[in-house]
Amino acid sequence: MKICFLAIGNELLKGRIVNTNLTKAGEILRTNGYDLTRGLTIQDDKESILAALEKELAENDVIIMSGGLGPTTDDITKKTIAAYFGVGMKEDTTTVELLTQFFAQRNIPLSDRNRAQAMVPENCEVMLNLRGTAPGMYFSVGEKKLFSLPGVPFEMLYLLENKILPILKQSFPLKHYQNHIFRLWGIPESSLADRIAEIEDRFPPELDLSYLPRIDGIWLECTIRGNAEDKAALSEKLAYWTGEIRAILADKCYTEGRQSLEQEVLTIFTERKLTLAIAESMTGGQIAGKLVTVSGASSYLKGGVTAYFTEIKEKVLNVPAEIIEKEGVVSAEVAMKMAEGVRTLLGADIGISTTGYADKSGEDILPHVWTGYADAHRSNSRRFDFFNTREINIERGVSAALVFLLNQLAVK
Amino acid sequence: MKICFLAIGNELLKGRIVNTNLTKAGEILRTNGYDLTRGLTIQDDKESILAALEKELAENDVIIMSGGLGPTTDDITKKTIAAYFGVGMKEDTTTVELLTQFFAQRNIPLSDRNRAQAMVPENCEVMLNLRGTAPGMYFSVGEKKLFSLPGVPFEMLYLLENKILPILKQSFPLKHYQNHIFRLWGIPESSLADRIAEIEDRFPPELDLSYLPRIDGIWLECTIRGNAEDKAALSEKLAYWTGEIRAILADKCYTEGRQSLEQEVLTIFTERKLTLAIAESMTGGQIAGKLVTVSGASSYLKGGVTAYFTEIKEKVLNVPAEIIEKEGVVSAEVAMKMAEGVRTLLGADIGISTTGYADKSGEDILPHVWTGYADAHRSNSRRFDFFNTREINIERGVSAALVFLLNQLAVK
Repeated sequence: MKICFLAIGNELLKGRIVNTNLTKAGEILRTNGYDLTRGLTIQDDKESILAALEKELAENDVIIMSGGLGPTTDDITKKTIAAYFGVGMKEDTTTVELLTQFFAQRNIPLSDRNRAQAMVPENCEVMLNLRGTAPGMYFSVGEKKLFSLPGVPFEMLYLLENKILPILKQSFPLKHYQNHIFRLWGIPESSLADRIAEIEDRFPPELDLSYLPRIDGIWLECTIRGNAEDKAALSEKLAYWTGEIRAILADKCYTEGRQSLEQEVLTIFTERKLTLAIAESMTGGQIAGKLVTVSGASSYLKGGVTAYFTEIKEKVLNVPAEIIEKEGVVSAEVAMKMAEGVRTLLGADIGISTTGYADKSGEDILPHVWTGYADAHRSNSRRFDFFNTREINIERGVSAALVFLLNQLAVK
Repeated sequence: MKICFLAIGNELLKGRIVNTNLTKAGEILRTNGYDLTRGLTIQDDKESILAALEKELAENDVIIMSGGLGPTTDDITKKTIAAYFGVGMKEDTTTVELLTQFFAQRNIPLSDRNRAQAMVPENCEVMLNLRGTAPGMYFSVGEKKLFSLPGVPFEMLYLLENKILPILKQSFPLKHYQNHIFRLWGIPESSLADRIAEIEDRFPPELDLSYLPRIDGIWLECTIRGNAEDKAALSEKLAYWTGEIRAILADKCYTEGRQSLEQEVLTIFTERKLTLAIAESMTGGQIAGKLVTVSGASSYLKGGVTAYFTEIKEKVLNVPAEIIEKEGVVSAEVAMKMAEGVRTLLGADIGISTTGYADKSGEDILPHVWTGYADAHRSNSRRFDFFNTREINIERGVSAALVFLLNQLAVK
């Protein structure tokens, strides 16, 4: 079964926006047992769209288009699809009702330009979009299926999950798909490959390993696939092989599974009824900024202090000037004192911190961070080195601090 | 001239990583006067790569491939290209030297697996990669050009800018390309389209408008293109039309040009020799976290306080409990008091703040933020409403606070 994701939009090719829709679609299809086999991005002119429809419908079973359905003049997907099928346009009344509500909620009158979004090719089945103004469209082409979705990511996602997946599940046989993720830090990709080569050589054919270098370390994903009726045997097989992998990676694996670091921190802190305070220098506020993206953060995250100037480390966080003088502001000791200081200032159970260089500093200091930890009984710190751009080094610093925090929380 | 960007990697189609390389390549080509006309993402198996090389080389002038050059077993691009051309492999000695240096710097011995990265198809010209371990490759195919780059974004970028662009500039005639960006906040895309429709109707053919909804509002980009020898006349024409647009959008335009908000804030604060302190609740630290991504932030950003618990707003930022009691913690008054409080605590010239709801709260409170401003003479605040997911609402809150700051700095 071949599925092509066809993104339409000059703005994607001109580098003005990132095609996260391809990524999201790929992830949702994969975790539902389908494979996205091809991704295509084309210009939003009639010729490009017609040529792509012609060729991709010939070579794929399913085409999921996104983009080119909005209210402004550069959006021509709908008319071109109608021309491709040789049909006219119709107004979808349910979409008109939705549009009327949508704009009323925002106190904006429904303009002709917006009402025109309810116009769709005559041969399409409308997939109601409860997240925005452009309706999704479904075309049945013999055995093949063509879907057209708006380009706005959360609208595209809503329609893919709630409308397209049920249609696919009815029409195509389901496969069993299961995977397990090891999250590793502090091992280069090539050393990892060497370490697991012997196990991988013995893998049965239905098992598959992939490496994914990410900001928060390497994700090693072990996947098993097969027929839905063999589910129990496949699960057991996956468990056996992940056991073998776990045994030889224990020293480099900081967690397993796909939940985000911020979700994991939330889970541990709420389970243990602990509160957290964060002192940031090198990461500038991004650790706290990441933790609050998860709903529920307000139950454990008291807050934080971004101590970017050295004087703020001294005055607000009470880091002794002598220690800064003696050890330098980027040091194990200052990281610990910052963690202790913010813990005391905000009255939290645990304090963590970062102090470091996001860029190369002078001739010989390479980017690195010291991240600190303090609770009522002890303090600790660790150094992490970085080899990337300023922006990425800061993001890596955020992950390093959270990986270190998880590690410290595991200490008995 | 047709340019296709061909990304190789199951991980892109499986939704494990975002194809930012397409975006970056599109942007760099565009701002150098070239158009990326097509983007393709395929699986990393021999058949898919061979089929894509065959078809895309037939229909495009330039193909830029990325991905599939790393040291792990799932990388087969190089061998498939060699097979496509019917040539063998050779070891590139300069790359071996680079690899030796690269691993020595990181105190890792050069393994066979890594040394194998210096192997390239016999008919390629190596483009030395000074940012990583996989060399770039250039194949001249008649009048056409095929480039193969590693998938790691900053390595891809380095080779595109430093190696590919010079080759393109030698072989293809340069076009004049110039654009101007209006950055707008608080106007829906459809109203914007209505407002400028009359001007757009009178546009000369070489001029082109595009809308880009972004986290920091709508970017309206006005582009002119033509022959390099007409540069002066084209510039003048662009200036005329942007003048017309400016006149009717003045009330919604918070800045012009493509520099980031964090860069703009840095420029203003360093020019005026001011310092900044930030108090964040709804944005959790992301404002400070964004400002530090620009080198030089340490010259003006003293730091900040993330006051996520209400008690921290009172105890650390000195927001009077009576005001919180009377107005609610998400209010104009609390936003101003937070800005004043952090300004005083950190001894900065200007304080800014956020307090808000990232999610819907209960039945009737929709996501919104109050952002505050305080300097030695006055305080102010403004409300912004959001209609998106928690994560995006927080990001929008960061932009809202910075847009409001720029607006306040412009007040005489």
